[in-house]
Amino acid sequence: MLKNWNPEAIPEKNEVKERLTAARTRLYELQMRIKEHKLPVLVLFEGWGASGKGSTIGKIIKNIDPRFFKVATLSAPTADELRRPFLYRYFKEIPEAGKFTFLDSGWMEQTCKDCLDGLAGQDYTKRIDSIKRFERQLTDNGYLVLKFFMQIDKKEQTERMERLLNDKDTLWRVAEFDRWQNAHYKKCGKIFDRYLADTNTSTAPWYIVDAKDKKWAELQVLETMVSNIEVAMQNSAHSVPILQNVFPLVKMSKLSDIELEGKEIDDDEYKAELKRLQKKLGDLHNRVYRKRVPVIITYEGWDAAGKGGNIRRITEALDPRGFEVHPIASPEPHEKARHYLWRFWTRLPKDGHIAVFDRTWYGRVMVERLEGFCSENDWKRAYNEMNEFEKELSDWGAVIIKFWVQIDKDTQLKRFTDRQNNPDKQWKITDEDWRNREKWDEYEVAVNEMLQKTSTAYAPWHILESVDKKYARIKALKIVIEELEKALG
Amino acid sequence: MLKNWNPEAIPEKNEVKERLTAARTRLYELQMRIKEHKLPVLVLFEGWGASGKGSTIGKIIKNIDPRFFKVATLSAPTADELRRPFLYRYFKEIPEAGKFTFLDSGWMEQTCKDCLDGLAGQDYTKRIDSIKRFERQLTDNGYLVLKFFMQIDKKEQTERMERLLNDKDTLWRVAEFDRWQNAHYKKCGKIFDRYLADTNTSTAPWYIVDAKDKKWAELQVLETMVSNIEVAMQNSAHSVPILQNVFPLVKMSKLSDIELEGKEIDDDEYKAELKRLQKKLGDLHNRVYRKRVPVIITYEGWDAAGKGGNIRRITEALDPRGFEVHPIASPEPHEKARHYLWRFWTRLPKDGHIAVFDRTWYGRVMVERLEGFCSENDWKRAYNEMNEFEKELSDWGAVIIKFWVQIDKDTQLKRFTDRQNNPDKQWKITDEDWRNREKWDEYEVAVNEMLQKTSTAYAPWHILESVDKKYARIKALKIVIEELEKALG
Repeated sequence: MLKNWNPEAIPEKNEVKERLTAARTRLYELQMRIKEHKLPVLVLFEGWGASGKGSTIGKIIKNIDPRFFKVATLSAPTADELRRPFLYRYFKEIPEAGKFTFLDSGWMEQTCKDCLDGLAGQDYTKRIDSIKRFERQLTDNGYLVLKFFMQIDKKEQTERMERLLNDKDTLWRVAEFDRWQNAHYKKCGKIFDRYLADTNTSTAPWYIVDAKDKKWAELQVLETMVSNIEVAMQNSAHSVPILQNVFPLVKMSKLSDIELEGKEIDDDEYKAELKRLQKKLGDLHNRVYRKRVPVIITYEGWDAAGKGGNIRRITEALDPRGFEVHPIASPEPHEKARHYLWRFWTRLPKDGHIAVFDRTWYGRVMVERLEGFCSENDWKRAYNEMNEFEKELSDWGAVIIKFWVQIDKDTQLKRFTDRQNNPDKQWKITDEDWRNREKWDEYEVAVNEMLQKTSTAYAPWHILESVDKKYARIKALKIVIEELEKALG
Repeated sequence: MLKNWNPEAIPEKNEVKERLTAARTRLYELQMRIKEHKLPVLVLFEGWGASGKGSTIGKIIKNIDPRFFKVATLSAPTADELRRPFLYRYFKEIPEAGKFTFLDSGWMEQTCKDCLDGLAGQDYTKRIDSIKRFERQLTDNGYLVLKFFMQIDKKEQTERMERLLNDKDTLWRVAEFDRWQNAHYKKCGKIFDRYLADTNTSTAPWYIVDAKDKKWAELQVLETMVSNIEVAMQNSAHSVPILQNVFPLVKMSKLSDIELEGKEIDDDEYKAELKRLQKKLGDLHNRVYRKRVPVIITYEGWDAAGKGGNIRRITEALDPRGFEVHPIASPEPHEKARHYLWRFWTRLPKDGHIAVFDRTWYGRVMVERLEGFCSENDWKRAYNEMNEFEKELSDWGAVIIKFWVQIDKDTQLKRFTDRQNNPDKQWKITDEDWRNREKWDEYEVAVNEMLQKTSTAYAPWHILESVDKKYARIKALKIVIEELEKALG
């Protein structure tokens, strides 16, 4: 793209000045409309060192109220970030609905640096795929993603760096990498160019900014922002195609075909097995930690199916410094204002840690689908989005163990009634539980579809038959142990 | 994509049957809604020989009223089609708003065949770019583009072909190429796979159909069609991002800066020059014909600027067997129902021929913009779409000469009054001309923007100062001659 790039002629000073005033005013006006439209705007600045990414952001945000934007400067990842998936630190920064996030370099710079360090071939392709999915998931979910590449030629870069280096006060602004880049301008240019071409999609296209003249650069950015924001606001509730599944699927039984009878264990065997398996899991946890394998265990299932007790039997065996349980209720306002996977991305474990999710992202295709909390297009698209999310985790090296805790309708009624009649357990039962129970059949349809469409080879569903809770606990422990042993080799 | 493709498990017969009934009924219902929504649906079937493209189309269309669909079987291009740009025969077939076109193989098959004949490197990239632009232009302009690839393995293909070949009645259905393909299955698979990956965009994604079982294949196609049609109908008047110009632009003066005074020629000189230049142009026309260079000359300009007379001085010099003049009025209903460039694509000359357009596709950013015949998003996007269109023509080898015929407001008034007062010329002046004249200033803004944004290096605008019509005619002839000489080398 850079190779075939044709910068527009710079207009005369007067024209630049007039258009700047107009564009600034327009952006100022638009910020309130963005808020009304609940449009989240992610503005990514990439480009050459010393091309003025930071200073351009500085000028743009003068036109926006500080309540409505955040600026994130992403330099090298921290030690903590290095222990998460590549996209973690970027996903974390996505704006809330109605607000801006400006990123002073992001996943492009990091990827191009990685290319210089040898990222190539299949690994490069995988990275590009993952970035394209990330950006597509954002735009599919209503985000406006604006990608600017600030372009200066080698001579201009050299001059700017010399100016900065000659002044004690600005010396710090030239990073080691910037100098290296300047010395290897052509090589870097090739990598940039390939990256730009590989990630130039019609829903999140690149805008190359001629950054030699600062006012002209600001104008290009402002006018592009304004024009794209105006377009995006015309598209409230825009639907997008449902993509074909591309991941290997494991065939799942329908819930009604799952045999529940006879799936039980007697007390003595249970106690002995529990002890034996928990000891084993505890040992494995150490190895997981040492080998830095991230582990994600998720629970979904009917109300009163016994998720809580099941989870407890797993976590009892683990070292508290190495795991976390995330109970997932309905999202907080700041969570609801973002991509629905945001609150899960931000709760991912470090490598070597175990995260247990008590209810999960699959709420999208169950409660959100049935209660109309998202559009039909949203939940239909979500199967693929969640398979992509888990693919990201699996490629990162995570072990993903997904449990569906299964009981029949009668068992649920019995447990509900027990809870109701037992003062110690009354807190566990709410009107909502009864309301959900009335929708059992609708839920069953949704759960069946979910199991069919999201049981991938790298993150299959496991059914825990839980009419006898003890049976389900032993089965869960065995599956976790088996999966960890597989991963540890 | 094929390499990593994971076919879904085929459901049980009963389920297939039930889902087929449901999907057929749904498609039947949807055809009327498509009509109401004015949604144009282009369904492209690509895939292996003997994979059942034609027979699947045959089953699908049973659910649609014949008034609402067309099937186009595109085998090898005809001699006539070979003399047009690659996309010509495909663009011709795009459906009207509210209707379906089914294509039994199209630009994928042709491109993959070309790859086997040596299409590679830069030329391959150019072809892919051009295909992606074509598909993006369709989806940006509200088309639903559904792309199916019918997949069967080598063994299945061999068996099917043998069956067809063993029966005199079906022998004809196996093309020479299909046999070759079967013998070179692996090689072809690689080419298909690369093409699928290169053209798998989020607005026109590929759906790979597991085509081994015919009913299952039909079901996959039907369900994908239904789901995508439903999504598309939710998006009436969807806006799309305005892409950055990527083509080299030539700097143009504003209309107000064009010097009109003194641009005149005296009668004797005019006559002599006219004779000399027309003779020269006539000679060049022969060379254009022999060398098979396609030539496209376009005229835009103010009412009464003298376009007609100017065109006549060009065509007088040409052999009538080698040129056509296309007067462009407001579009007919069947034209308005399609992509706005369709009526120009279908009027492209054969190579070696000259097409003169009296008014053009630039109506999109002038009259359609000012009269609100298209949305703001439509005309803002059109600059790039027209640059892309002309790039396509230029890459094909066409000489593109674009004239803007310029006069001032007073000259127009004088000519309007003359026409009004002269019984022989009264037919040339209408109320609409007077109405347009009132919008002179708005038009001037639009024309200036058009000249700035669509004067590309490969198809620049030429200004014809036409207060003295004779001057403008001589200038036009000189420019045409110069451009043809350049092209003929």
